[in-house]
Amino acid sequence: MSEIKMIAPAVPNVPWQDKPEKPIAGAPIWRYTENPIINRNPIEGVARIFNSAVVPYEDGFVGVFRGEQTNGISFIYFGRSKDGINWEFEKDKIRFKDEQGNDFMPKYAYDPRLVKIDDTYYAIWCQDFYGASIGMAKTTDFKTWTRMECPFIPFNRNAVLFPRKINGMYKMLSRPSDSGHTPFGDIFISESPDLEYWGHHRHVMGRNGMWWESLKIGGGAAPIETSEGWLIFYHGVSGTCNGYVYSIGGAILDLEEPSKVLYRCENFLLTPEEWYEERGFVPNVCFPCATVHDPESGKIALYYGCADSYVSVAFCYFDEIVQYIKDHSDTDWNDTDLGKC
Amino acid sequence: MSEIKMIAPAVPNVPWQDKPEKPIAGAPIWRYTENPIINRNPIEGVARIFNSAVVPYEDGFVGVFRGEQTNGISFIYFGRSKDGINWEFEKDKIRFKDEQGNDFMPKYAYDPRLVKIDDTYYAIWCQDFYGASIGMAKTTDFKTWTRMECPFIPFNRNAVLFPRKINGMYKMLSRPSDSGHTPFGDIFISESPDLEYWGHHRHVMGRNGMWWESLKIGGGAAPIETSEGWLIFYHGVSGTCNGYVYSIGGAILDLEEPSKVLYRCENFLLTPEEWYEERGFVPNVCFPCATVHDPESGKIALYYGCADSYVSVAFCYFDEIVQYIKDHSDTDWNDTDLGKC
Repeated sequence: MSEIKMIAPAVPNVPWQDKPEKPIAGAPIWRYTENPIINRNPIEGVARIFNSAVVPYEDGFVGVFRGEQTNGISFIYFGRSKDGINWEFEKDKIRFKDEQGNDFMPKYAYDPRLVKIDDTYYAIWCQDFYGASIGMAKTTDFKTWTRMECPFIPFNRNAVLFPRKINGMYKMLSRPSDSGHTPFGDIFISESPDLEYWGHHRHVMGRNGMWWESLKIGGGAAPIETSEGWLIFYHGVSGTCNGYVYSIGGAILDLEEPSKVLYRCENFLLTPEEWYEERGFVPNVCFPCATVHDPESGKIALYYGCADSYVSVAFCYFDEIVQYIKDHSDTDWNDTDLGKC
Repeated sequence: MSEIKMIAPAVPNVPWQDKPEKPIAGAPIWRYTENPIINRNPIEGVARIFNSAVVPYEDGFVGVFRGEQTNGISFIYFGRSKDGINWEFEKDKIRFKDEQGNDFMPKYAYDPRLVKIDDTYYAIWCQDFYGASIGMAKTTDFKTWTRMECPFIPFNRNAVLFPRKINGMYKMLSRPSDSGHTPFGDIFISESPDLEYWGHHRHVMGRNGMWWESLKIGGGAAPIETSEGWLIFYHGVSGTCNGYVYSIGGAILDLEEPSKVLYRCENFLLTPEEWYEERGFVPNVCFPCATVHDPESGKIALYYGCADSYVSVAFCYFDEIVQYIKDHSDTDWNDTDLGKC
């Protein structure tokens, strides 16, 4: 076994397919051969599901799914799966309630993440708040969801909660944005004593000179705690003459001060190559949103949205991907410093 | 005396010049005949002072001033005045310290506001934080200034603190922005139990159909508490073929829920007309940043930046301006609702 340890609950049934026998040219991560796992028109009235997040739950998995309705408006849908590959969805969008139990729906909601902290599951998404901003809700049973205060003023996207408090504080990554297609963007981190009031904002890492993440970057899957630091899968965007290209990157953040980047892989881990990544409503998008991971076996299943049209999964061994990120790390002061204003 | 009451400490020496005898065509507010009160090259190495804020202090006045150095970089300077009209500046920019007393300067800082809450004075400005964002510091003696945490993630400008807590919470107006010249922008409000962590963000009011505030709006002077609600002087911007035009607007916010606008004047209160407003580094700018006001006499002296080159002052009677705002009020649901996400 590797010297590097993953610190997380055991998930012996992590979705998995063995590494292909033919050598991998780039990062040690490989796509599921049956991708995409969620195809078009998955629910009545929903044209596409993509950019969605899953967690282990009871003896299987549950998830929050960006479902784009046939009127073009996205909401969050709930799904269950025995194996993390084959999903069944509830027909109606998730009905968020306020603290008093009254319906409290955002106008639209997209790109959800889902994180368990202690005994509560938190969904974090992007929604309208007089512009793109972060919305949140919590549940303990996946039956009742309570809307929480929006953590930040607009404009913001791609918020990701850490799976535990650090030095007594909840921590959240996010990406200040504009309300359009945002041709810029760095990852920031904020902290909160109570998930209600937020502060101590710090810059984590910026877009950089590597073509595949030179336009903007944004948080992806919830950080995985390891003995080396917080392992993150994020997205990096290149602006081409024919539009944006979204690739998946990897980095490792300091355990105690996660605004400091310890390692940042100069190579993308995954970039659009397959038909379901290159073709769709928004071509050329690999958009990571969640992992299912097991410390015993070292297996990671990475869920990512494809071309704003599908959900796919890729696999890697935790120690191999950490080693690859370390071996190909290139950071600058924007990454490694505290990022204080 | 008017039925409308101003709730504020007495300032018997509020700077003042009587209303001119010839009728005023628009809002009942008139410019000081000796404007601008701060001219070019006011300090060695400082080309222009503008967009600055003052408060009564001891037997006179003090202020924080946006000084644009001859290298083009703005910092905050400190000044004192016996009469609020004639100012003496410290030669060096304000040296902000961290909690440990070490130098902690922003890269640049501009458009400061200054608000007293209880026995502490808070300066709030715009600065670099990987983009335009809000910076803060506090002092009790105007000798030592302690930098505080930046309240918000970028991008943001025009933050204004309320002069007291409301229902136990500090309240701050701000204007989510981009990092450029920001061709959009509405006023939001946020609250904090401790000035360190912020949340419960609400939309206050948006740019609207009136030409003079159709591009963006932003907080100006600190709100003045009145029996009718919080009186605010803000700026509204029109986008013309030859650039932005900044006028001064007025509104009254609900005392307990200041995200609700009670009255919003459809007419500007002041718009660039004089040479010092029309000519300068940025022509056509009237940019309100502070008031000095006295509940006994009802006098208000409004300080505003002119053309990013000068500071001027205008005067009004409190009850007349409130009545004018009420008589010419036009609000829509974006203004009058709670503004929750």
